[in-house]
Formats: sequence, C-alpha cells, structure tokens
Amino acid sequence: MDQPSRLAGTVRPGGRTARVRAAVLEATQDELVEHGFHGLTMDQVAARAGVGKTTVYRRWGTKAGLVADLMNELANQSSAHADTGGIEADLYANALAVVEAISDRRLGVTFQAVIAAATSDDQAAQALRGFFQRRIEEWANVVDLAVERGELPKGTDGAEVIRAISAPLYYRLVVTREPVTEEVAEWSVARTLAAARAGTFAVKARRAMGVREAVESRG
Amino acid sequence: MDQPSRLAGTVRPGGRTARVRAAVLEATQDELVEHGFHGLTMDQVAARAGVGKTTVYRRWGTKAGLVADLMNELANQSSAHADTGGIEADLYANALAVVEAISDRRLGVTFQAVIAAATSDDQAAQALRGFFQRRIEEWANVVDLAVERGELPKGTDGAEVIRAISAPLYYRLVVTREPVTEEVAEWSVARTLAAARAGTFAVKARRAMGVREAVESRG
Repeated sequence: MDQPSRLAGTVRPGGRTARVRAAVLEATQDELVEHGFHGLTMDQVAARAGVGKTTVYRRWGTKAGLVADLMNELANQSSAHADTGGIEADLYANALAVVEAISDRRLGVTFQAVIAAATSDDQAAQALRGFFQRRIEEWANVVDLAVERGELPKGTDGAEVIRAISAPLYYRLVVTREPVTEEVAEWSVARTLAAARAGTFAVKARRAMGVREAVESRG
Repeated sequence: MDQPSRLAGTVRPGGRTARVRAAVLEATQDELVEHGFHGLTMDQVAARAGVGKTTVYRRWGTKAGLVADLMNELANQSSAHADTGGIEADLYANALAVVEAISDRRLGVTFQAVIAAATSDDQAAQALRGFFQRRIEEWANVVDLAVERGELPKGTDGAEVIRAISAPLYYRLVVTREPVTEEVAEWSVARTLAAARAGTFAVKARRAMGVREAVESRG
C-alpha cells in the first residue's frame, strides 16, 4: 500500500503497448480522483491519455474494466510484506502502510472512489475484492513466519490477522468518517496481537469457541 | 441497527408536519435504494412523497439535508443497547444487530448508498458520522456496565470496544467485499473480548503501550 502515488514514471519500461497502458491507467486515476466513478468516462480517459478511443474501448471494454486494471496495477506496485524478524514490528509496518496510503491524497481518494463505485457496480466490487485478496495474501506471510518462530499459536489464520489490522483503519475512513492516525494503527496492532496470542485467530480455537452456541443456549 | 426496515408505519403519530416528514423520509430512502445518492433528486422525492416541492426545499434545503434527516431518524428508531448481564452476550447482540442491518436488503443498501455518498460529499459524511457517533455512544454503555461488574479492566474505552466489534463487519461489507456472516460476528466478539481482557482497550494501558516508540527505537 506504500506504492508510489503516481503510476506514469514507475510502470515497467516496454514497447508502445506498455506505454499506452501506463498513460491510460494514469488518466483513469486522474479522472477518478477529480470526478469519481460516476463522472469517469471512457472518452475523457482516452482524450486525457492522448490515445484513440477505439483502442481504449477495445482493450478495456468498460470504465469498470479500466478501474479493474488500475487496481491490478496498484496491487503489482504495492510493496512486499515486511520481514523485521518480529511480528509486532511487521504488523505495525503493515498498519502504517495502510495509514500512509489512506492519507496520500491521490491514493486515498482513488481507494475511496473505488469503494464508492463498488457499492453499486459489480465489476468495481470485483476489482476491489481482487486488490485486497492479493494484499491480504501477501501480508499473511508475516503471520506464518511468526507462527514458525513460535511468536503466535499454531494454526493462527494469517489472512484473518491481516484483515483485523486493517479493519479499524478503513472503518474509520469510510464508515464512521473519523481520523485515521498513527495512534489508531498502534491500537490496532496491540489489540490484534493480544487477541492472536490468546488463540482467537487459530482455526481450531475458532471452531471450539462457539460464542453463538453459548449465548443461544443461555437465552 | 435492528430498526424496522420501513419507516412509514413506525414513525410516531403526530400532526400534518410529522406525516409529511415520514412520507418524505420514506421517499428519500426509496430513491436512495433505487438510484443511489447520485441519482437522488429533491423533485423526485417530493413527487414520490406526494408533497409540494417548495415544502421539501424549504424544510430540507438539499438532498444531503434529506439524507442527514433520514440517518437521524434511523438512529432514533434503532434499538437501545442490550443488557443481558454478561459482556459476551451483550457484544454478540450488538454484532448480530449489525449483521442483520447489513443483510436487510433495504437497510443494507441504504447504508451503502450513504457510505458511497460520504466519500465525496461533506454533508453526507457528516450525516454518517452523526449516526455512528450515536450508535457507538449508546452501545458503549454495555462496556461500562461490564467494567462495573468486574468483567473487563478498569479504564476500558467502551466506544473503542464497540468500534472494534463493528469494524471487521463493515470492512468486509464495503472494502474487501467479502460475506458478512454470523460466524464473522462471533469471531469479532471473541477477538475483541480477548484484546479487552488483556487490557489493550484501557486508556492508561494504551498510553503505556508505545508500540510505535518501541518499533522506531528498534529500527
């Protein structure tokens, strides 16, 4: 999530096809940031990128197709997981990367535009889901390494730990609309780690927990 | 969040003013669900409610004003906090109410429409913030009661506990676009409780934690 804020200068060098794609994705992000998903049009992206409309229609099909490819590129460019040798520092690096992405005007607005689009467009929802699946899988590795080192209980579900780190940050950003600060990132790490050490992220423990059954049998 | 799905039959009886408000908010919700915030217009709401346009403009001003009043009414109608006598069951009741609200087609779509609107409209963001502030404050009481009973450490921040219960549910709903099930509600309760029992929601503990400082001094 600490990918550079602008795509253009950073996309892998290549032939004309790669240059066209870089220009189109850059223009897509520009239009998303300025006008949101509702205001995004294929024609405007083509004009802004200096690329023929037919090329854009042929290659990306719809504006949701453009957004899906943009999210794909952002996932490609986002950083590999940390590996500091300690789970606390690794998770904090992850939380901080999220705070930074959210706080970056261009990236933060891009994510919010796609989150908004996904509430009413299935293709945008699929693009968003794909981005986070990749990010969650990548960072789940830090949990697996911590389990191997004996820092966390065996069977700890890495993907769930990573979701738990990010959830309070995005919840504040798009739901309660509260500030997302480094302090919130700290809280998230401390709380998730305490819960993980208590075994509540272990797949076996999860089955044995039965909160619902316990509550239902009580009342 | 387990407010009835339709407003019209449930708004307090009253004179003409109350009836007009009920009809207008019902029409606002209908339009939001069908067309989203972008597709919502004051004129269409007035027509649907069978109320004069000038009344709607004079009383609510803008479409964001309509949405703000709708969120206000949804907060009024949503349930008081549970009080089962045990923190686990109380938090589970809260988590389940969120899952049910999210899963209710009309209510779920309404929240998503307002969440989407809030990404680009300050008044919609304010309406959303106001709704969650009220819900979080109301349910924070269950944590205060648990602290009094000695179930949770002194100084536990009730609002933060309630945020932590909801965060993974909304994160899946609008960010990762993953299913929000009763099982996810169970996990959220178990993990949040483990973290709360470990003292990570206590205000004093929070200051002493210093994850950031520890990590920064290390690297």
